[in-house]
Amino acid sequence: MSAEQVAVYMTTLGQQARKASRVIARAPTAVKNAALLATAEAIEAATEQLVAANQLDLQAGRDNGLDDAMLDRLALTPARLAAMVEGLRQVASLDDPVGALRDMKFLPSGIQVGKMRVPLGVIGIIYESRPNVTVEAASLCLKSGNACILRGGSESIHSNRAIAECLRQGLAAAGLPNDVVQVVETTDRAAVGALITMPDYVDVIVPRGGKGLIERISREARVPVIKHLDGICHVYVDDRADFDKAEAIVINAKTHRYGVCNAMETLLVNEAIAGPFLQRVAPLYAAKGVELRGCPATCALLPDAVAATEEDWSTEYLAPILSIRVVADMDAAIEHINTYSSQHTDAMVSEDYTRARRFIAEVDSSSVMINASTRFADGFEYGLGAEIGISTDKIHARGPVGLEGLTSEKYVVFGDGHIRQ
Amino acid sequence: MSAEQVAVYMTTLGQQARKASRVIARAPTAVKNAALLATAEAIEAATEQLVAANQLDLQAGRDNGLDDAMLDRLALTPARLAAMVEGLRQVASLDDPVGALRDMKFLPSGIQVGKMRVPLGVIGIIYESRPNVTVEAASLCLKSGNACILRGGSESIHSNRAIAECLRQGLAAAGLPNDVVQVVETTDRAAVGALITMPDYVDVIVPRGGKGLIERISREARVPVIKHLDGICHVYVDDRADFDKAEAIVINAKTHRYGVCNAMETLLVNEAIAGPFLQRVAPLYAAKGVELRGCPATCALLPDAVAATEEDWSTEYLAPILSIRVVADMDAAIEHINTYSSQHTDAMVSEDYTRARRFIAEVDSSSVMINASTRFADGFEYGLGAEIGISTDKIHARGPVGLEGLTSEKYVVFGDGHIRQ
Repeated sequence: MSAEQVAVYMTTLGQQARKASRVIARAPTAVKNAALLATAEAIEAATEQLVAANQLDLQAGRDNGLDDAMLDRLALTPARLAAMVEGLRQVASLDDPVGALRDMKFLPSGIQVGKMRVPLGVIGIIYESRPNVTVEAASLCLKSGNACILRGGSESIHSNRAIAECLRQGLAAAGLPNDVVQVVETTDRAAVGALITMPDYVDVIVPRGGKGLIERISREARVPVIKHLDGICHVYVDDRADFDKAEAIVINAKTHRYGVCNAMETLLVNEAIAGPFLQRVAPLYAAKGVELRGCPATCALLPDAVAATEEDWSTEYLAPILSIRVVADMDAAIEHINTYSSQHTDAMVSEDYTRARRFIAEVDSSSVMINASTRFADGFEYGLGAEIGISTDKIHARGPVGLEGLTSEKYVVFGDGHIRQ
Repeated sequence: MSAEQVAVYMTTLGQQARKASRVIARAPTAVKNAALLATAEAIEAATEQLVAANQLDLQAGRDNGLDDAMLDRLALTPARLAAMVEGLRQVASLDDPVGALRDMKFLPSGIQVGKMRVPLGVIGIIYESRPNVTVEAASLCLKSGNACILRGGSESIHSNRAIAECLRQGLAAAGLPNDVVQVVETTDRAAVGALITMPDYVDVIVPRGGKGLIERISREARVPVIKHLDGICHVYVDDRADFDKAEAIVINAKTHRYGVCNAMETLLVNEAIAGPFLQRVAPLYAAKGVELRGCPATCALLPDAVAATEEDWSTEYLAPILSIRVVADMDAAIEHINTYSSQHTDAMVSEDYTRARRFIAEVDSSSVMINASTRFADGFEYGLGAEIGISTDKIHARGPVGLEGLTSEKYVVFGDGHIRQ
């Protein structure tokens, strides 16, 4: 497509989405659920075609020299197809957030005022190679009453087209317009530039992918962006910690999975218990091959630790590397966290009631935890049923974003002929 | 100041604000209220100095040829000073939103998860000549646990400096740092450019002023903006309307005040009752000197109405002018509203239960009303106690923005040594 053709194509998608958004915004819960369940059935029925389409992407990926990790993310295995189907059924089972009223109250003028939860309108999702995001994102947008425009990576274009066909069948079965979910069918990169600069047709952009993609989109977007940047998560082990709980948490937070945003990257330890605690956990990290980078006090306690540099405190390793700092007290830990944390997820291990209340109140991160592993920061673990991403922004939505994060609230006013005096 | 000096100055304000934001975020409710009440006392005690400072601004304004409306907005009259003091006491009496927990629940893993309301951090307010905004904005930011940087119009610089001194006294009396509220002391326009492009130090910008100012700030800001654009508000009079209520509402919505964003600009009337209803209200508008611009059906009914052009439907008159359109039914009214409304405030007058439910659900505006005047769309009228503005955005906050709109929610997780399996 020429640049002009891409612009015309994207404008058409935008106009169609805006129109469809009015229909899905007022669709009854049962109709939305019917579309989700029919899509699940369509995917089950189309397993063969989906795998065949995915083979085209995998073959092209191999021809283009994609690495194994990339090919793995691209692959639609039977287990992943089953998870997609299961995910659709789960979203169908979630409460519908749309239309919920809260805080309705009568005011001195006689009017009754409250807030009603409403869809955002049209959501643009930009993601990389994983084709299962197509179904996850579409199902959350649909259930929350939003139309969506999905722009996946060019490597997964055949898979995404095949999935889009299943979504169309699901929408049609429920009597909803096709345009509630639209997949961008061109791999032209200009399509992304168009999608993020159509405030008349797109209300919010959710980018999912590497930091480079997200930073570029945030910089160039002309519409609000719900985004996830770094996950530099901390665990502070207080001198009032229960060592058994602390050990379980710091091992789980670092080693349960390394390449995830909610893994611990820095361990902070109260100086009063730094010696015994670090000497207890260091061999456990060593057994798992975790490299330790410590402050001078840490290095003095752990001969195998290497010296951490200033840069280490603000690095998201996503790898079996852990930075460790010995701190004087909880205040010093909070100071370190509020300086270096990416405000994603930070935890304290302590049995102290007053410190727990203060840590929860004073740490300014999207998830703040006491005596729990940072790995819990996740939409499924929080009971949202699913998540479209984790927001590290401060306005609108913080932390895992589920159905509620894809909605907003408007005021509703009931009167009986009331006028303002 | 040179451009470089402005940049250094604004960076310093930003750093100071960020530091102060950590203190105010955890300040107890009683301390915040003490600062508000002490500021009220300081303003009462400084009436003479405030009026003298304001005289300097008024004199400079006259010398610079400001028009009467501008000079009126600039003036600190005794009544306005009293209103500022009263406003501070009202904000002190409001519930503190910070720290409220909701939806705490236990999940299958054993962790307990919920949401805690937290301040946004640092808020930048950019406004024009009205010096009372300085106190209103500062008091709302303070009560909601935020630091703020206030940049008023250069015409009101002496007044704002004098008000800032009262705010400093109030903060000091409560033992809070000065930098919780900072007034930009330079009138250099580059200060605005700097304020809206410091994502490290400023979390959100609230511009208050004319559309030109707001559009420029939205375009150039590198941080989120909570903004108010047009107020093109509608009232639809249904064929099931009670004429007495309808008459009261459409007269109030248009003529209570003309220059306000929540005034009705377009009246939609069901064709089944258009004749009798329009003939009843037309003389009332005529008596108040309101010019009527109608669709062909309206003009056929009202000989004095002039023909409306396509442009009229999307014009915010802010003047004694009203556009009128006769529509076939409620669906046509909703279609017109969703096409031309600025999504600020739209109302229906009807006694029909089913239509009322549909109108509330299907009109996508920040305030949707049944049988009430659009003039009620206001923070005070909604019981927010005060408002920092009215948002026509869709994410984060819609409609009148009070204390809650200056906060966000983070997740809190309580465990007992829980780890993810």
